[in-house]
Amino acid sequence: MTLQGVCSFAQGEWVSPGEHTRRIADAVTGQDFAEAGGASLDFAEMRRWARQNGGNALRTMTFHDRARMLKALALYLGERKQALYDLSYRTGATLADSKIDIDGGIGTMLVIASKGRREMPDSQVYLDGDVEQLSRGGTFLGQHICTPLRGVAVHINAFNFPVWGMLEKLAPTLLAGMPAIVKPATDSCYVTEACVRMMLDSGLLPEGALQLVTGGLGDLLDRLDCQDVVSFTGSAETAFKLRSNPHLLRESVRFVAEQDSLNASVLGPDAVPGTPEFDLFVKEAHREMTAKAGQKCTAIRRIIAPDAHVPALIAALSQKLTDTRIGAPDLETTRMGALISNKQRADVLAKLELLGPETERVCGDPQNFDVDGADASEGAFLPPVLLYCANPDAAQRVHDTEAFGPVSTVMGYQDLEHAMALVNRGGGSLVASVVTGDGDVARQVALSAGAFHGRLYFNNATSMKESTGHGSPLPHMVHGGPGRAGGGEELGGVRGVMHYMQRTAIQGSPDILTAIGGTWFPGARETERDTHPFTRRYGDLQIGDTLQTASREITLEDVEHFAKFTGDTFYAHMDEEAAKRNPFFPGRVAHGYLLLSFAAGLFVQPDEGPVLANTGLENLRFMKPVRPGAHLKVRLTVKKKTPRTDSYGEVRWDVQLRDQDDDVVGEYDLLTMVAF
Amino acid sequence: MTLQGVCSFAQGEWVSPGEHTRRIADAVTGQDFAEAGGASLDFAEMRRWARQNGGNALRTMTFHDRARMLKALALYLGERKQALYDLSYRTGATLADSKIDIDGGIGTMLVIASKGRREMPDSQVYLDGDVEQLSRGGTFLGQHICTPLRGVAVHINAFNFPVWGMLEKLAPTLLAGMPAIVKPATDSCYVTEACVRMMLDSGLLPEGALQLVTGGLGDLLDRLDCQDVVSFTGSAETAFKLRSNPHLLRESVRFVAEQDSLNASVLGPDAVPGTPEFDLFVKEAHREMTAKAGQKCTAIRRIIAPDAHVPALIAALSQKLTDTRIGAPDLETTRMGALISNKQRADVLAKLELLGPETERVCGDPQNFDVDGADASEGAFLPPVLLYCANPDAAQRVHDTEAFGPVSTVMGYQDLEHAMALVNRGGGSLVASVVTGDGDVARQVALSAGAFHGRLYFNNATSMKESTGHGSPLPHMVHGGPGRAGGGEELGGVRGVMHYMQRTAIQGSPDILTAIGGTWFPGARETERDTHPFTRRYGDLQIGDTLQTASREITLEDVEHFAKFTGDTFYAHMDEEAAKRNPFFPGRVAHGYLLLSFAAGLFVQPDEGPVLANTGLENLRFMKPVRPGAHLKVRLTVKKKTPRTDSYGEVRWDVQLRDQDDDVVGEYDLLTMVAF
Repeated sequence: MTLQGVCSFAQGEWVSPGEHTRRIADAVTGQDFAEAGGASLDFAEMRRWARQNGGNALRTMTFHDRARMLKALALYLGERKQALYDLSYRTGATLADSKIDIDGGIGTMLVIASKGRREMPDSQVYLDGDVEQLSRGGTFLGQHICTPLRGVAVHINAFNFPVWGMLEKLAPTLLAGMPAIVKPATDSCYVTEACVRMMLDSGLLPEGALQLVTGGLGDLLDRLDCQDVVSFTGSAETAFKLRSNPHLLRESVRFVAEQDSLNASVLGPDAVPGTPEFDLFVKEAHREMTAKAGQKCTAIRRIIAPDAHVPALIAALSQKLTDTRIGAPDLETTRMGALISNKQRADVLAKLELLGPETERVCGDPQNFDVDGADASEGAFLPPVLLYCANPDAAQRVHDTEAFGPVSTVMGYQDLEHAMALVNRGGGSLVASVVTGDGDVARQVALSAGAFHGRLYFNNATSMKESTGHGSPLPHMVHGGPGRAGGGEELGGVRGVMHYMQRTAIQGSPDILTAIGGTWFPGARETERDTHPFTRRYGDLQIGDTLQTASREITLEDVEHFAKFTGDTFYAHMDEEAAKRNPFFPGRVAHGYLLLSFAAGLFVQPDEGPVLANTGLENLRFMKPVRPGAHLKVRLTVKKKTPRTDSYGEVRWDVQLRDQDDDVVGEYDLLTMVAF
Repeated sequence: MTLQGVCSFAQGEWVSPGEHTRRIADAVTGQDFAEAGGASLDFAEMRRWARQNGGNALRTMTFHDRARMLKALALYLGERKQALYDLSYRTGATLADSKIDIDGGIGTMLVIASKGRREMPDSQVYLDGDVEQLSRGGTFLGQHICTPLRGVAVHINAFNFPVWGMLEKLAPTLLAGMPAIVKPATDSCYVTEACVRMMLDSGLLPEGALQLVTGGLGDLLDRLDCQDVVSFTGSAETAFKLRSNPHLLRESVRFVAEQDSLNASVLGPDAVPGTPEFDLFVKEAHREMTAKAGQKCTAIRRIIAPDAHVPALIAALSQKLTDTRIGAPDLETTRMGALISNKQRADVLAKLELLGPETERVCGDPQNFDVDGADASEGAFLPPVLLYCANPDAAQRVHDTEAFGPVSTVMGYQDLEHAMALVNRGGGSLVASVVTGDGDVARQVALSAGAFHGRLYFNNATSMKESTGHGSPLPHMVHGGPGRAGGGEELGGVRGVMHYMQRTAIQGSPDILTAIGGTWFPGARETERDTHPFTRRYGDLQIGDTLQTASREITLEDVEHFAKFTGDTFYAHMDEEAAKRNPFFPGRVAHGYLLLSFAAGLFVQPDEGPVLANTGLENLRFMKPVRPGAHLKVRLTVKKKTPRTDSYGEVRWDVQLRDQDDDVVGEYDLLTMVAF
């Protein structure tokens, strides 16, 4: 039988495997069916290709352009996912497993695309945080910006999620404006290759934005510099080897690692047997042990329960594990498929040996279990194995040995402090979960275990219906963890995009910052034009366009009338003596909402026109009390523009209210939608 | 003459130097006067001491407690800075230099303290970013939090800023809630020791929060884990050695490096001779070359000017350099003092040798210059040396060799793109500056050079009076840079505090998040009590306290009256047909400000009481148009509390406006001040 060659994609060409390939077996049959590697790739040229073609093309796009590209890519893949499911069975994954990988990857790309549109500007410079007032007079300001790194992102992925693992790194990378070279783990690289082919065939990506290496990375890492990024997912051993590379260290190349983790799940003190929380706990523990046959970096490796409830927990969980049908992943009845390879199966068995002296096996026998529709002696099958550790304080292996398969260890705790000490013995984990309905427990967990975890997942009867699972990294939330988990972070919405950008502190005059940021900064040029800005369409409004209104007196009658009309008879507006006793006011003052309303009356152009609606208001501060008799005037300036649909965009106005002494009495951002 | 022993401070005790010390010379006389090192410190115990005493004590404090402590410490040091100035002369620093170090360090601590009070909560959990809606029904939410790491921060500092270098790291560390072990460079460690003595004598720090190592760090780094941080400032060579430590790599110990940098300053194309910008450029270049005798990690090493203006620039700058009086730092006439040591002087001379083949010396002769009030053959004196590189494209040393003294190289550029290519040849720098009045130039610089720089400093005639200097890292802005600069970040306000905290993604029900975050999350418990919340003092308002108001009809007459009264006759409120043509409205709608005003009328308790003022409003969004005839009601809930002065605090209310169908028509955060 001829082996299928899994190709690389370099400098715009598909490259077949060379002479010294690695063979890839079907996880279910154990038979070799494909091969990868051995191609003579010119890594210097691949890097140059990525930087020159991909980087330049992506950097000319705005964040919104890139977000739209990601959305289109995700939809394109969504229409073709059946082909990926079909391939994926060979990795041992059931359809449910494949959905985590394939639908999960596509969904992640969609969320990142949506965050790009909603939370990033339609330009090439991202503003990080607020303006800093570095001078009294306001002629010198500070602002942090982020711009894309000018190198290439090298993504080194694990075997367990050949699609999600690629897309969860690729989406933030492309959104940032960086090209990528993807290197999947060989065992499942044929699925990744198929997905890459789809993305390239879509024609949606600029040339050079995506290259693929199936096989070794050669000397690529030795060629990187401070403009490149290495993002690694895999074992602690490989991570250590890669991050010790002297060239990477000398050049301060960014290295993001997500590696082994001894994730714990804690049954809260309140979640006793008989509660919905207890059942929920058993259900999640079962799911995490069996999904992807336990080959998930976030899977629950340690199950920590109150001493008193350990027997009930073991009984309930063992029952569910025993009922789990193992078999060929494409059988409808199968609940757990195969591991990726017999090598991986052997590794799990070796880890079980290591864990042996500290634990007792309470469920599952690796030497004796049923497999539906496949030959257990050929494929990489294992049953779920539940261990019990009677003395977790004295034990070490249960806290540092990750059997990357359907294996977990139950251990008991005395009180919450003890539970947290055990949880933290993991030495840094991607995630810990706690099932509890008690807010005080949750708070103590966050304070005690937060520092050791990238994610803390709480669940209870309130959230159980909508909760997304202990083991599911979400694109909105950071994924990663300290110490043993690798010390890295990925995802987390825009946070994940930052890994592929450089944050730079910008200092300069308001006009300089405005030119760089594409946003009006206080003190920058104001342009008064001959027409009212509300008569101008989106495209005809320029950053800095300003309206200065006439002024209007605010009389005591206005204040009294407003109070009566609205019902807001707060004493500071109505009672001179009471207002005087207040530390903020010299006597009766106008209502803040009166000021806002009169301001609108001053700046509004009433006729039907391109301004469609006032959709909101932000950062309002009242700075000086306004006494009856004061005069109010308004300065309205275009601060920022963001397209929202095909027919209109959001215009953010900086609004400043001043009194007769030209003192600022209030300031805010006004949000409007304006037609294109 | 007996040598002064510079002590360490370990486990609550001062420890004198041991047998094998390093001698420290006076920079001005070249004579040894002190010694440090050789003490037998038990680093395992120091770490344990810091974690157990310092860490536990700091973690029981809130961010505001720690910020107040920092402010008190800074004020305490401020009263004692003369003693530090006096010592500092021995490092070769003039009084002006010492002010950068000592006043700069104290000022940094004050800014960080102030940011802690203003931008962080009065509790132990910092919320990073906004809540994430992870479910449709709102029973499962996400929020990122930050909590202090539970280890010790090891600060390894450079010789050039014995006070600022310590305080700029210490302030964010303590604010985060982490203890520190400070290891200053030996050459100037006597100034650091004096400053540490002051801080410890102040009694303001909890025991274990601060320890000092003068001398080697022994095996300390080999004892750290994922809860510790190493923050290093110094040479690339030392950084490489430290960050290659296999133990640090294996444990994913956070390592922040700020190292060598070939910072550039660019004369903008518009800043031709005769403009105020040209003179400004010469002034800044001169200052950066001579302040601290050029021993600043941010000093300008490469001066990049349009080819045509290179001669004029060299002439003007050389004149100022030649006029710079070099001498004993305590003389009032001295403008530039000594380098830290004769070893450092020899190093600068060696680097000048390296630069020789690529450059021509156009000002300053290290073999022949005047020194006032000191013996040039004994002290570590050098004159400012200006080099010129005629072919910067072919050159390599001028872009990678940092002569850490009063040395800079002028080179010409053809156009802005060429200038940016030269700037980026630095391979990653802490800072680059550009003198320009042209916003387009600034934007091109940010896009081309941002990725290579931690900071970009723009200056021109508008900002020159208030600008803070190319070489001054500010506590508000990040300090650090990619690649050769070390790849690290420090400062940047709260960003710098994050280096000493773990960010954790929290997922759970609204009540769980509320318990952890100390802030009310949408969907969390609402508590209606028997009194109006406006009648309750700050201390008697609990997170979640809620008022549900009665409802009020909004009539067409109300809308017309409001329009007439305020002048806001925008067509969407007044013209049924025009409003219908608008994509947002089904016909005439009530003014947003009318809704806000009526809402206040509904929720306000008018009598004099603890609520002092409505100071602002945030995140207002109008979600559904409100037609005349609709009924409006309000839900007002205590979201967050932050003390602001000794007598009142800010209470943030979540306000939700609903109509007769119970649909949300608007939502915002209302800010009030409430008396204690």
